[in-house]
Amino acid sequence: MIATGTLYIISAPSGAGKTSLVKSVLAGDDQVRVSVSDTTRVMREGERDGVDYNFVTMQTFDRQIEEHVYLEYADVFTNKYGTSKNWVDAQLASGTDVILEIDWQGAQQVRKLVTDAISIFILPPSQQELRSRLQGRGTDEQAVVDHRMENSVGEIEHYAEFDYLVINDDFEVALQELSCIFIAQRLRLSQQRLRHDKLLTDLLVK
Amino acid sequence: MIATGTLYIISAPSGAGKTSLVKSVLAGDDQVRVSVSDTTRVMREGERDGVDYNFVTMQTFDRQIEEHVYLEYADVFTNKYGTSKNWVDAQLASGTDVILEIDWQGAQQVRKLVTDAISIFILPPSQQELRSRLQGRGTDEQAVVDHRMENSVGEIEHYAEFDYLVINDDFEVALQELSCIFIAQRLRLSQQRLRHDKLLTDLLVK
Repeated sequence: MIATGTLYIISAPSGAGKTSLVKSVLAGDDQVRVSVSDTTRVMREGERDGVDYNFVTMQTFDRQIEEHVYLEYADVFTNKYGTSKNWVDAQLASGTDVILEIDWQGAQQVRKLVTDAISIFILPPSQQELRSRLQGRGTDEQAVVDHRMENSVGEIEHYAEFDYLVINDDFEVALQELSCIFIAQRLRLSQQRLRHDKLLTDLLVK
Repeated sequence: MIATGTLYIISAPSGAGKTSLVKSVLAGDDQVRVSVSDTTRVMREGERDGVDYNFVTMQTFDRQIEEHVYLEYADVFTNKYGTSKNWVDAQLASGTDVILEIDWQGAQQVRKLVTDAISIFILPPSQQELRSRLQGRGTDEQAVVDHRMENSVGEIEHYAEFDYLVINDDFEVALQELSCIFIAQRLRLSQQRLRHDKLLTDLLVK
């Protein structure tokens, strides 16, 4: 199987603006999709199976762990969340890039299995700005915000494990930067050879 | 010396549109400059020393070859052309990216000396389009155009030695792609660490 798509890992601390950035990348680029995770948690109102998550039973999830179905998975409280390898492989094989929005632990798992995955870490422009974003509407107690800050700093500690860093100060700049990582990757020799095989042959005819 | 700029090699067959593309990249990006080559040939009307070329004597050029001043050089008929290492190093050290517009032979020389140089090859969208661009105003004899085509195909044979391929079909698309290679490179961990050292330290303060 010749994969022509690229697998991207995008991680960030809460408050860095990852979700909005990824949403905007998807809106402007039809060659990339976000992976839909499997989860054992109960479907919430407004969620759709196969769109927001693939909702599976704990029994199915555990069997699939045994069967090495997951590129990465995590226990979050009493529920499990995971990225199924099959769907990702099918997308890559069809030439579509895939984004995994996962945390640094998930990123570590995926890197071991997909050595040519490209990982991107999104950072806030300052602690002050991060705190202000985490404060939400300002109604939360100081202790709650402090706890969120602690979690975010704990995430940020892993920035050096990533291939690219994007600083989300001005949203439009960060969006353009993120898009450029995708575009540049498609211009690499190995990718262009697969996509423009015929042109490269034709150009060399004497 | 910690270099923060990146050295780019841009090569292309005649007719691919390299010169116009590079000019447009420079116009929209103040963090990159094109290297000015040394040459032994006579200055032509309208040319400026230090801008179009650094005009040097054959004696100086040959001494500088001995002194390993050149990243790459070439004999073209009775003249020599070369890229001086010192100027390039100074630019990179100041955080400026440098473009070398050189052919595949020059590219081979530079890769040996600067292993982290990034090389980009620009291709025309078809042989037919290439021939039409090489025909100029259509007043040239068939034999002349054939000879240019042969030279171009000889250049194109080396495309697989480059890191990136950009196909110049639609100029604006090719320009955006080329710009993205530069932007993405600056987002790499190693580059961002140098540029945003203070931010990365500040974000981790508890």
